[in-house]
Amino acid sequence: LVDRKVTQLLSPGTLVEERLLPADENYLAAIASGDGYALALLDLSTGEFRCAAFGSRAALYDELGRHRPAEVLLAPEFQENEALLAEFRARFPVMLSQASFEPDVCERELAQTLGHTPPDLDSVALRRACGAALGYARFALQGRLEMITRVQRFDPSAHLNLPESAAAALEVFRPNSPGGPTLLSALSETRTAAGRRRLRAWLRAPLLDETTIRARQEAVATLVAQPDRRERLRSALYRAHDLERLTARISTLRAVPREVAALARTLELLPEIAGVLEGLGGTLGGLRERLSGLSDLPALIRAALVDEPPIKIGEGGLIRDGFDARLDELRAEAIRHRQWLADLEAHERARTGIPSLKVGFNSVTGYYLEVTRAHQGRVPDDYHQIGTLKNALRFTRPDVREREREILRAETQATALEAEVFSRLREQLCQHADALSRVAGALGDLDVLCCLAEVAATRGWVRPQTVSGELSLKQARHPVVQQALGDRFVPNDAELHPERRLLILTGPNMAGKSTYLRTVALCALLHQIGSFVPADAARMCVFDAIHTRIGASDDLAGGRSTFMVEMSELASILHGATPRSLVILDEIGRGTSTYDGLAIAWAALEHLHRTGAFTLFATHYFELTRLEGQLGGVVNLHVAALEEAGGLTFYHQVVEGPASRSYGIGVAKLAGLPPRVTTRAAQLLAGLQAREEGAGDAVLG
Amino acid sequence: LVDRKVTQLLSPGTLVEERLLPADENYLAAIASGDGYALALLDLSTGEFRCAAFGSRAALYDELGRHRPAEVLLAPEFQENEALLAEFRARFPVMLSQASFEPDVCERELAQTLGHTPPDLDSVALRRACGAALGYARFALQGRLEMITRVQRFDPSAHLNLPESAAAALEVFRPNSPGGPTLLSALSETRTAAGRRRLRAWLRAPLLDETTIRARQEAVATLVAQPDRRERLRSALYRAHDLERLTARISTLRAVPREVAALARTLELLPEIAGVLEGLGGTLGGLRERLSGLSDLPALIRAALVDEPPIKIGEGGLIRDGFDARLDELRAEAIRHRQWLADLEAHERARTGIPSLKVGFNSVTGYYLEVTRAHQGRVPDDYHQIGTLKNALRFTRPDVREREREILRAETQATALEAEVFSRLREQLCQHADALSRVAGALGDLDVLCCLAEVAATRGWVRPQTVSGELSLKQARHPVVQQALGDRFVPNDAELHPERRLLILTGPNMAGKSTYLRTVALCALLHQIGSFVPADAARMCVFDAIHTRIGASDDLAGGRSTFMVEMSELASILHGATPRSLVILDEIGRGTSTYDGLAIAWAALEHLHRTGAFTLFATHYFELTRLEGQLGGVVNLHVAALEEAGGLTFYHQVVEGPASRSYGIGVAKLAGLPPRVTTRAAQLLAGLQAREEGAGDAVLG
Repeated sequence: LVDRKVTQLLSPGTLVEERLLPADENYLAAIASGDGYALALLDLSTGEFRCAAFGSRAALYDELGRHRPAEVLLAPEFQENEALLAEFRARFPVMLSQASFEPDVCERELAQTLGHTPPDLDSVALRRACGAALGYARFALQGRLEMITRVQRFDPSAHLNLPESAAAALEVFRPNSPGGPTLLSALSETRTAAGRRRLRAWLRAPLLDETTIRARQEAVATLVAQPDRRERLRSALYRAHDLERLTARISTLRAVPREVAALARTLELLPEIAGVLEGLGGTLGGLRERLSGLSDLPALIRAALVDEPPIKIGEGGLIRDGFDARLDELRAEAIRHRQWLADLEAHERARTGIPSLKVGFNSVTGYYLEVTRAHQGRVPDDYHQIGTLKNALRFTRPDVREREREILRAETQATALEAEVFSRLREQLCQHADALSRVAGALGDLDVLCCLAEVAATRGWVRPQTVSGELSLKQARHPVVQQALGDRFVPNDAELHPERRLLILTGPNMAGKSTYLRTVALCALLHQIGSFVPADAARMCVFDAIHTRIGASDDLAGGRSTFMVEMSELASILHGATPRSLVILDEIGRGTSTYDGLAIAWAALEHLHRTGAFTLFATHYFELTRLEGQLGGVVNLHVAALEEAGGLTFYHQVVEGPASRSYGIGVAKLAGLPPRVTTRAAQLLAGLQAREEGAGDAVLG
Repeated sequence: LVDRKVTQLLSPGTLVEERLLPADENYLAAIASGDGYALALLDLSTGEFRCAAFGSRAALYDELGRHRPAEVLLAPEFQENEALLAEFRARFPVMLSQASFEPDVCERELAQTLGHTPPDLDSVALRRACGAALGYARFALQGRLEMITRVQRFDPSAHLNLPESAAAALEVFRPNSPGGPTLLSALSETRTAAGRRRLRAWLRAPLLDETTIRARQEAVATLVAQPDRRERLRSALYRAHDLERLTARISTLRAVPREVAALARTLELLPEIAGVLEGLGGTLGGLRERLSGLSDLPALIRAALVDEPPIKIGEGGLIRDGFDARLDELRAEAIRHRQWLADLEAHERARTGIPSLKVGFNSVTGYYLEVTRAHQGRVPDDYHQIGTLKNALRFTRPDVREREREILRAETQATALEAEVFSRLREQLCQHADALSRVAGALGDLDVLCCLAEVAATRGWVRPQTVSGELSLKQARHPVVQQALGDRFVPNDAELHPERRLLILTGPNMAGKSTYLRTVALCALLHQIGSFVPADAARMCVFDAIHTRIGASDDLAGGRSTFMVEMSELASILHGATPRSLVILDEIGRGTSTYDGLAIAWAALEHLHRTGAFTLFATHYFELTRLEGQLGGVVNLHVAALEEAGGLTFYHQVVEGPASRSYGIGVAKLAGLPPRVTTRAAQLLAGLQAREEGAGDAVLG
């Protein structure tokens, strides 16, 4: 499949050159099928290599959506299925490349790169996906795959399930309008590129395990409580280079002198960081351990390299004087000859009596002796003319030529020797690739913890108490909107438990219903990455999934109507929701006519009520507020608005009970509809309400 | 207010330079108040100058929205009213400039530019607006306002009222998504810039007068029926330059030689065009008259100018040989001297015996005689050396210098004389500015008529019969969407008359409801500019207004919520609609909760029913279909859809009767909602329907 005569390949998923790479992760993905689906993800810039198996295409797509690979390899069974290929292309407009997914070839690839076939790659599909990714990477990088030392299988179901639609609606990674803020951007207090990648990884895989959540919270709490330590850590991190990528460059022996110097500067920060972490236990104490063991490397590098080495190897000037005896000797020789030439001018002026005699150099003729025409007569016999200018003549001599050749020889040999010395240094460093990788990971984790602590401390966030079967937020804020609005943001409480598990939120548009729903969902997500949450007090359970159906985006690429998209997303929520899920629904049923939309919303609510999932439901269907009395655990909420002489004021305050029904008519009056029309509308509304109250119960109860 | 020391002003509303101007109209607007509002509109690139008075700010804004000026002058009373200024800025993000609106100053301006104060400027506000625009233009153009010969007062109420919101919703001038098609772009068969501007003007001011409508229709019909004439006219128009703008350049004496040549080429087309129109009566016959009277000008220009004159005047070479005796003489002199110099080389070679002697010229030293060093000895005594090269020497002689001076003198005088001759020509042409302006207008009208005929003929449009109290379209198409879809577009009938004056359209999203509503509105608009309409047969009444409330665009700049915008637009429709209006409403009431939204929509429909306006109402409120039996003239329509095993098929076919109510549940099933949920939804829907049918009549009837 791959033309082996090609000797180099530049493709978006196999970049390792810093100047071409995006600041964030850069994944090459490979997808194979067989008893479900297998996905391999490879970031060659850091050596990160992971894989997972999925039972459904939807789950595979969710994972792909979270990782957004730069390039994808599809197994032939996908490429031959036109419908599947079209679906894939519509969802992921990404470069698709060709690689071999032959089981034999893939097994060989695994053995060659990793030395063995890892036992947890326990299906053909997983081995094909991983092997195909490696094979393609090997081809693209002409074999230099030393940065890949292991493949890590992960279990998507071991993390909170945040479907792609929910991540999109909540604007976790990407804004819905170009250039807008996201949860990720609102948390942008990381100080290193590795930290930013790690924060993104945490958001992609929120935790289910309470112990791990509490451990992260504890670390964040410590850093919140000790601003001095936090500030010292963040200041050190700010000076660190991208250790993950430097390590990948080191292990493939591609690192240039300037990168090795950056490695030294970064490693020199470790004692400082370890010092700040001194005496701390738990996660932070563990991080301190993970930072140890590389204390000799900076001295090794410093001894070999000059303080500010050049980027390139080939021009010399990178190895420190005194490091290599033979190099010192060559440099001394060159200097001696140059000195001889420098002395020559004074010497020859004295000998010839020509006061303006000069020794010069240019790259074409080499060293020369220059005499003005006025003194032409005094030029000695041992000078050979090699050039004529308007006012001067240029000469050389055999001994000058000889010195010139000696300088060239010494310098060429020195440069070659410098490259050799540097190569040896790089190979020495490569021995420590595993330890470097461990330290890089620890720095990334530390950066995220500091970031979460900084956000919590500066914005008044609170540590949530991790509990069971309950969500209680006091004065919660939307973490992104609050950033934009500051003090003008109106906080709200949220309370969910089994006897209050389905909240129906009615009220006018623009009053803050959607913001309220999103606030609860984002707090749940933040809780499960171990973060503090934007509230004054929080008790939160661990959810297995956050499902959302928000907004009215047409799936134009997929060619489905708004309503079809809405129903498809609703279907997957109803099938997927469990008693431990959080479900956010905004205006279900709007895409069709009143009655069938209402009937669908109603039946969906009943279904969610049966599952026991914690549900927040914003709706214009006022009829649904009748469920409060009829189904246990259903509670009505609305957003307060005040109609005044001058206009309507929205308080953005969520309070108990259904909204006032006549709000729309109030707005219509303000907008200047003829009084006869608004009076008639009020009369019709009264009739509709009376009808509903008088007759409907038997049918709808 | 204006600093008179500024000597030139480049502002978006006062451009007259072709390379800076947009292809379309470029208006400077001035707005004053006093007993309502006055608006002056000035396009300096064509000399178009119009004004109008308005009773309300809304009407003023509608007109401004249709014209989209590039620059606006606001009277001080607006500038001092902060709320008004803020409202204006939010609606029209346009450059606001300063000018004097003092009544005295404005009156003087009018008298100076037009020679008098036109009697139909019968209010101070109108005179202030017009005078301010002229004053600012005079300042910007340093007095050259000769292109303005009159101000035309127009009566906005003499045209069909198409509010800005309707023009926007129907995408008449501007697309709702960037780069999308518009009605204007769908009609883009004009061949000249003036024609395109004229088409836009027709769309801005659709007719109310049946006689004028019929006259335009008749002209279009003639050109549809005679494709040969049409093709010859369009071919001639294609070769025409922008006569309106050329005329403005001529009348301000700014035209450059190349523009005057373009004027000649364009005027030379007139006999050809008049020939094609030979024998036709009506509007086309009238146009033929308007094209006459300028037959001498092309010959005048041709005689004076060379065939392809340069852009600039200052470099000569624009006046034809034989046109001016003195010029011919000067040119002959220059040629004689040049010939002498050309002969000199041969002459001097013979005299000196130097075979390589050359006569040359460079701009620094002028003419020279060049001799190589080899022949240095043979240089005669009358040569004076003026330059030294490596291998050659350069000389001059007094007689060579003399010839050089003579050439310079003759050529400088000739260039000055050419400019003078051209100036005289331009002044001669300026005498004909009025006639040129008349011809330019006629060409623009002719271009629009040809364009409408071309569209009608190539797309199978039909001539509507202009009738009273009836709109009947057979197999009507949306003029823009049909362009994109071609044969896949499904045409529909539309029938409105007093006994069938309010159509309620129900049915699923994506099935074509909005397209149907827009088709009817656009056909009505096309009818009233005199165009054929995209249908197989059409009988149409003349509407006084087309009102629409479509879509859900937030007025974010104005800070109003979607629902508030919706209600404000609805209010102005309910106040403005008359028995002769066409009203298009799409999904009124969606921005609030079900019941009050329904009540408002219901009351609004009752109100429109009372006014007698022809109304098309698309809604998801199925309850409204009950009005069919209760109010005379109300008829239900729906868009046909077929539920099949494999999916839902939309036929985009509008048929009588209300839509099926269970459509939404059908989609929900297809989308994969759990069967228990869809079954329950169907049961709830049946209950809701039963409730409505059983109990509601007394309340709702």
